[in-house]
Amino acid sequence: MAKQKKAPRPKAQTPKGFRDYFGAEVTQRTEMLQAIAGVYHRYGFEALESAAVETVEALGKFLPDVDRPNEGVFAWQEFDEKDNGDWMALRYDLTAPLARVYAQHRNDLPSPYRRYAMGPVWRNEKPGPGRYRQFYQCDADTVGTASMAADAEICAMLSDTLETVGIARGDYIIRVNNRKVLNGVLETMGLNDGEQRDAVLRTIDKFDKVGEAGVRQLLGKGRLDASGAYIDGVGLSDAQIEPVLGFVNSFAVVQNKLSIEASNALAEGDSDRADKLDRARYSVSHEFRDTPEIYQDSEAREIWTTRILDHLHEIVGQSSVGFEGVNELREIAGLLQAQGYGPDRIMIDPSVVRGLGYYTGPVYEAELTFEILDDKGRKRQFGSVAGGGRYDDLVKRFTGQEVPATGVSIGVDRLLAALREKGRITAEAKGPVVVTVMDKTRMADYQAMVAELRNAGIRAEVYLGNPKNFGNQLKYADKRNSPIAVIEGGDEKEKGVVQIKDLILGSKIAESATLEEWKERPSQFEVPRGDLVAKVREILDGQD
Amino acid sequence: MAKQKKAPRPKAQTPKGFRDYFGAEVTQRTEMLQAIAGVYHRYGFEALESAAVETVEALGKFLPDVDRPNEGVFAWQEFDEKDNGDWMALRYDLTAPLARVYAQHRNDLPSPYRRYAMGPVWRNEKPGPGRYRQFYQCDADTVGTASMAADAEICAMLSDTLETVGIARGDYIIRVNNRKVLNGVLETMGLNDGEQRDAVLRTIDKFDKVGEAGVRQLLGKGRLDASGAYIDGVGLSDAQIEPVLGFVNSFAVVQNKLSIEASNALAEGDSDRADKLDRARYSVSHEFRDTPEIYQDSEAREIWTTRILDHLHEIVGQSSVGFEGVNELREIAGLLQAQGYGPDRIMIDPSVVRGLGYYTGPVYEAELTFEILDDKGRKRQFGSVAGGGRYDDLVKRFTGQEVPATGVSIGVDRLLAALREKGRITAEAKGPVVVTVMDKTRMADYQAMVAELRNAGIRAEVYLGNPKNFGNQLKYADKRNSPIAVIEGGDEKEKGVVQIKDLILGSKIAESATLEEWKERPSQFEVPRGDLVAKVREILDGQD
Repeated sequence: MAKQKKAPRPKAQTPKGFRDYFGAEVTQRTEMLQAIAGVYHRYGFEALESAAVETVEALGKFLPDVDRPNEGVFAWQEFDEKDNGDWMALRYDLTAPLARVYAQHRNDLPSPYRRYAMGPVWRNEKPGPGRYRQFYQCDADTVGTASMAADAEICAMLSDTLETVGIARGDYIIRVNNRKVLNGVLETMGLNDGEQRDAVLRTIDKFDKVGEAGVRQLLGKGRLDASGAYIDGVGLSDAQIEPVLGFVNSFAVVQNKLSIEASNALAEGDSDRADKLDRARYSVSHEFRDTPEIYQDSEAREIWTTRILDHLHEIVGQSSVGFEGVNELREIAGLLQAQGYGPDRIMIDPSVVRGLGYYTGPVYEAELTFEILDDKGRKRQFGSVAGGGRYDDLVKRFTGQEVPATGVSIGVDRLLAALREKGRITAEAKGPVVVTVMDKTRMADYQAMVAELRNAGIRAEVYLGNPKNFGNQLKYADKRNSPIAVIEGGDEKEKGVVQIKDLILGSKIAESATLEEWKERPSQFEVPRGDLVAKVREILDGQD
Repeated sequence: MAKQKKAPRPKAQTPKGFRDYFGAEVTQRTEMLQAIAGVYHRYGFEALESAAVETVEALGKFLPDVDRPNEGVFAWQEFDEKDNGDWMALRYDLTAPLARVYAQHRNDLPSPYRRYAMGPVWRNEKPGPGRYRQFYQCDADTVGTASMAADAEICAMLSDTLETVGIARGDYIIRVNNRKVLNGVLETMGLNDGEQRDAVLRTIDKFDKVGEAGVRQLLGKGRLDASGAYIDGVGLSDAQIEPVLGFVNSFAVVQNKLSIEASNALAEGDSDRADKLDRARYSVSHEFRDTPEIYQDSEAREIWTTRILDHLHEIVGQSSVGFEGVNELREIAGLLQAQGYGPDRIMIDPSVVRGLGYYTGPVYEAELTFEILDDKGRKRQFGSVAGGGRYDDLVKRFTGQEVPATGVSIGVDRLLAALREKGRITAEAKGPVVVTVMDKTRMADYQAMVAELRNAGIRAEVYLGNPKNFGNQLKYADKRNSPIAVIEGGDEKEKGVVQIKDLILGSKIAESATLEEWKERPSQFEVPRGDLVAKVREILDGQD
């Protein structure tokens, strides 16, 4: 007789590219979000929470992942009888929903509207090691003002935020650029096609991943990627590629200029001037990153700022949009300088472009400058943890009227990873006091104990597994990282006492103590039942 | 010449059934989640955050919305080249993902595993007024123990939680029932078909919505709903419907019994006994809800508990599963009593069934008992804000091995609405100090002022709109609910002073003050620039 076929069991797995977060991973993120919200709030920003789901038309298509299904978003069609329901999608960032919210509620919102938002976003990306398809962002945006003061404010706030969550000054740098400058460069090249421009932007944004040679290939005919697939290029001519790379390489170009000028000054006997020029160059040079008095020399970095702005002015030539971009950068640099945010914290850097298609003016990026070891044990800089910029046309999509806006997004999960790398936070957290169960029928007694402990503000729980094997209870306490176990068997009950075991001291003694120490510092105490809370508190205080 | 056709503008709207939350709505929810997490943590529960997205097979189909697309979930197929990618879906609760997490990570997790989780969940329900398709839940579950102490603990914790977030004792009641009892009743009726049983459960769960007569129809042939659609019934015979309703009506049945017994006792001259029986009956009778010494008489409610358990014992008759259910309820009631959680907070109530299909034992529900006015101005009880129960088979779906589990889910948005109804929290919050802009070219000065204020911990911002019309700046400050505006024009700059305007006092004076009061309590102060922070703080302190 054939056995009845059972339905196969579901797999206990997250979908590809998703993961679970446990214990301290969760609470540390919550704490970080609260700390960031605190800074945003102090700057006058108001909380906003929109739903995870938007219509596809409201979200628009701005992700750089043009070659992914649904261009990088998770989308589905709303069911209706005629099969023509709206297409809905999970938000891929918090900016596109803000534009929708502002357009929808603009008559009720203050103008300008400063808002912050935090929560997960979803990207339909190819999953890979360490790359997840759901991650947290924490954004602040100002909608309804074209003033560069709004951009400067966001950069200053980003700097305050990073220091608030534990990134020391000097361990990060906020780089500011302006899309208009690059557009100016492209304009001087005669490149006016919007789509091709976006493609150039996305390509430049891959600089970190594929290097200069890779960018050169991708701006031209294309290249073979690591997996052997051929990636089509943007199709620029060599003559067009050069100025683009010249722009991206502005940093190296200006450094080179300063170096030559310094040599000349020295040759002319003007060693003061040579020194100044050298210091300006060294102040942003990676090789001095461990020498803060050079790497973060404010005066030298100011010279640097002037020089880089002058250089940009030069390369945008006659382009009026390019000229506007340079002036905006000058204004931002000036406002920040006046508030004391020098180029040791926030600097102009033409290599920043940001991959998203909707930026129209200043763009900014916060990078952590300390080094970590990658999977293969090689040193590398930690890299970007936040970015943003001005997107003056995003609300206009809905309303037809121009509504200028600018904002930043912090990648909270990356920032947490950075703090863990630096050892500023650890994922281990203290567990609860565990009241063990010696007699199953007296569960109510044990429950009363934990109730007393909790009422005194002490984290505590009863062991709820099978109490037969006492060893399992202690193993459980160990797995829970419990500081203390409480024991009340029949004998103790009769005598009116409880046993209190200091598990942290116990494990230290077990590891290393001599017999004398063992005798001297017992890790288990018998106290009257009435002293339970006082003794537990005493031991906990001693463990801190 | 024909104009070029433009793409239509996207609509600035949330998808149907979704909404945005602003300002205090968001921060109050965050605070509530943190308060709840605090209680859960104190009870030894560990945080867990899984992704919003799960595979459809992992989630399973347990929602009562069998007649909705995808049975009530938002789902889509993962893209792959062969068009046979996994089906993915947004989680509809936090319990199904927990079962998946536990099955996936069981070798690394402590056993039993106490975990809490909070976040949005999504239901593909028909949108309606006040019904949203994304809402917050805040769950606590214990996986890996069959002990009723786990269920009792969760109920006690739920009681603590409600009081912690501001629901006074007496304004809520936690009702506990057991699925096994109802299964026992169904078993005595010869109803053993699982699907039909589930349908009976779902129908009973609609009691609040459709009343006894409606449930009677739905258990039988069906009924016309308000929209005129015919809803098919479960198809029970009248003889089968009666015991089910008898079970659901246990409350009224026991009240009736007590009433008769009290009359008899009085007739026999035993007025003490009659009084006791009456008090037991009154202690749960809605008509005495405003008389706590009657409605929450602990002793009387204990008698009530005994009586209701005896009644249940009676109606499950020879069913062993029913008998087991009654005993489990007895054990829970005993444990809670021993910890001091009397039936004034947590009571046995057979009318609770819970709609979800996965419960296997005790089920519980927290209800707010105070009255509010509904849309039509009628008084009604606020109703359920939390619920949960035991689901011993949910992990087994994955592993094949039985893993008992129990847990609760708090509907955070409903709880917030309740606190707002009671006036315990208000949605208005104080805005930032607004530094006005009198001279566009001195933006850096104004930025420096807000920086000073923020560094002193005061929430402050510069007006970033068009500064031309000063009236607009004050209107903005008003819309922002700002307590103070700071003004520094050219004259002030020259004199080295600033004007500080107390906007709250100002609006009070404008509303009601006499001329004398107006003179006596000026709402605008001129102070030296150096005293800005001190004066602002002084005014803020005075406003609290």
